Amino acid sequence: MSERAHSLVGVFGAGQLGRMLALAGYPLGLRFLFVDPSEGSPASACAEQLALDYGDEQALTRLSSCDVVTYEFENVPVDAVRRLAGRVPCFPPPRALEVAQDRLAEKTCFQELAIETPKFAAVSTRAELDAAVAAIGLPSVLKTRRFGYDGKGQEVLRTAEDVDRAWQTLGQSALILEAFVPFDRELSLVAARARSGQTVFYPLVQNRHGDGILRETRAPAPNLTPELQALAESYVTRLLGELDYVGVLALELFQVGGKLLANEFAPRVHNSGHWTIEGAVTSQFENHLRAVLGLPLGPAAALGPAAMLNLIGQSVDAEAVLAVPDAHLHWYGKEPRPGRKVGHITVRAPDWATLDERLTLLAKLL
Amino acid sequence: MSERAHSLVGVFGAGQLGRMLALAGYPLGLRFLFVDPSEGSPASACAEQLALDYGDEQALTRLSSCDVVTYEFENVPVDAVRRLAGRVPCFPPPRALEVAQDRLAEKTCFQELAIETPKFAAVSTRAELDAAVAAIGLPSVLKTRRFGYDGKGQEVLRTAEDVDRAWQTLGQSALILEAFVPFDRELSLVAARARSGQTVFYPLVQNRHGDGILRETRAPAPNLTPELQALAESYVTRLLGELDYVGVLALELFQVGGKLLANEFAPRVHNSGHWTIEGAVTSQFENHLRAVLGLPLGPAAALGPAAMLNLIGQSVDAEAVLAVPDAHLHWYGKEPRPGRKVGHITVRAPDWATLDERLTLLAKLL
Repeated sequence: MSERAHSLVGVFGAGQLGRMLALAGYPLGLRFLFVDPSEGSPASACAEQLALDYGDEQALTRLSSCDVVTYEFENVPVDAVRRLAGRVPCFPPPRALEVAQDRLAEKTCFQELAIETPKFAAVSTRAELDAAVAAIGLPSVLKTRRFGYDGKGQEVLRTAEDVDRAWQTLGQSALILEAFVPFDRELSLVAARARSGQTVFYPLVQNRHGDGILRETRAPAPNLTPELQALAESYVTRLLGELDYVGVLALELFQVGGKLLANEFAPRVHNSGHWTIEGAVTSQFENHLRAVLGLPLGPAAALGPAAMLNLIGQSVDAEAVLAVPDAHLHWYGKEPRPGRKVGHITVRAPDWATLDERLTLLAKLL
Repeated sequence: MSERAHSLVGVFGAGQLGRMLALAGYPLGLRFLFVDPSEGSPASACAEQLALDYGDEQALTRLSSCDVVTYEFENVPVDAVRRLAGRVPCFPPPRALEVAQDRLAEKTCFQELAIETPKFAAVSTRAELDAAVAAIGLPSVLKTRRFGYDGKGQEVLRTAEDVDRAWQTLGQSALILEAFVPFDRELSLVAARARSGQTVFYPLVQNRHGDGILRETRAPAPNLTPELQALAESYVTRLLGELDYVGVLALELFQVGGKLLANEFAPRVHNSGHWTIEGAVTSQFENHLRAVLGLPLGPAAALGPAAMLNLIGQSVDAEAVLAVPDAHLHWYGKEPRPGRKVGHITVRAPDWATLDERLTLLAKLL
């Protein structure tokens, strides 16, 4: 067992998620090897990074000497991972990557599992787009099936002109049209499943996006009912089972009344789970590592009300942030650029009213 | 301000305390440079280590390029630090090191500040030892003035034969004889003082030693009264003021009824403060970094009952430890050797009864 706790963990991707995995893993005695083509990525401040392409043979050879391999982002070449999986345990399983990389496969998977989703239709020709718009109606959202993130690769269609314009912008790619959901709020559920099948669920959290990028998470989601939590857990349980999943998975949901519609899942630790570092009994990063190493998972309960604010494209007055009681600053070691996530702040409080006061103080600094 | 949050921090010593400083510092955006003559020290897993002597000119030159320099252990050559302090801010101040390095200077400092201590006397000759034994009585403890740690360099004197034997063992060194205190329990207070003078106090904790090595800390100390906390804080306030202190300091105390006798202080983060990583609003490691960087300190309140168990000279079944709810494992990346601190476990619980149950489970694994 203690060997397992001194394992070498290979990670595809060396961004902030990888960095936070490493910071959670050192106390467990783990060592890390990151592969990421972008030299000097956030994880490289505290671990070895191979600045090589994900499919590079030298990178795969080095990774095959690890005790386990995982990913901190979902757009790893599935072929490379499948080849590697014959030589070293790779978790989550490559099929989870494959499904998550294609919005059509993802939504179809949800549908087959009776996980409610917004209406959707595959679009690969202009004629299919017109048919899809006729079937789904406006407003709706046209998205590339692959490589979208943080609102990139998608267009909201409200008028016939939007349809023309969006087709010109995105028509080169395989697409999916999805109904625009007039949601009450956006939620997400982060879960971890161990090699043993043991599964823990963090509480549903409430997310607020701006320009397609997550801005704020409140945890647990205010006014969370046991029914809503149970519904979300039932969705994720089906998904974890179907994918024979090991590791942390996040499911993004739209709440409409008492209904939950699945938007997408991430086969990895997730921005809406960053609050768990200070806010939960066990962080999503530690539980992901425990899961892929075959160790038991830690409890996922919240310690109390918490909120997470992303720092996007901007620095912030660290002195002022740290003067807010129970505010915790996380820099990723990245140069600020517009739209780039460079850090986050988690703030806790004994009650929601105090949390709101602290959020008001922090909002003035952003 | 944000520059301060991206500073390069130089650290004398690269043991587990340095490693935990680095893990607390990366989220603040800090970078680290460790100096420690023992190659492959714990901090080297996650930061650059110069394997050079503390007084080495090349090491000092590299450290002088840091934004601030600090220490993770107290036996750094004071001369080297004084020279360095002319070129780069060094915190805590060298005088704190100087006083902490010499048990006689330390006890004398306590005395001058009206901080109660066990009776003590300087001993440099056999005649002085006999006079000290006559004045202080038996049992008492003969200690080297310098370089003692984890119970090393000290002998308990109960009989005249013990006096002879102890003199033979320790007589080569400058010594101090201290009364043996029949204490009710051992406590310690960890505090942090910022450059601004802002000071925070963690709650008093209860420590249990075995063979001179800390085995267990309970935090907050059971049955802690506001009076006892206030008395300990008044001691530490005097000490911090006298030393013009910046950083984390730990004061070890003996409780005898309602009295507190100061045993020694550590001018650094302390083993009895490891529980603060999961158990307090802000960890001692983060507050030490905030202090030396001139940032505001975070609250030092406990989140609830917690306990810390040292892993000494032994591995442990990680799987079994992590199956205990809210147990957190910390490996230092050291090879187990008898008497060597190789890691620790912190366990939290909503109440003391549950904490005791969890400690019982953990005790079976050690």
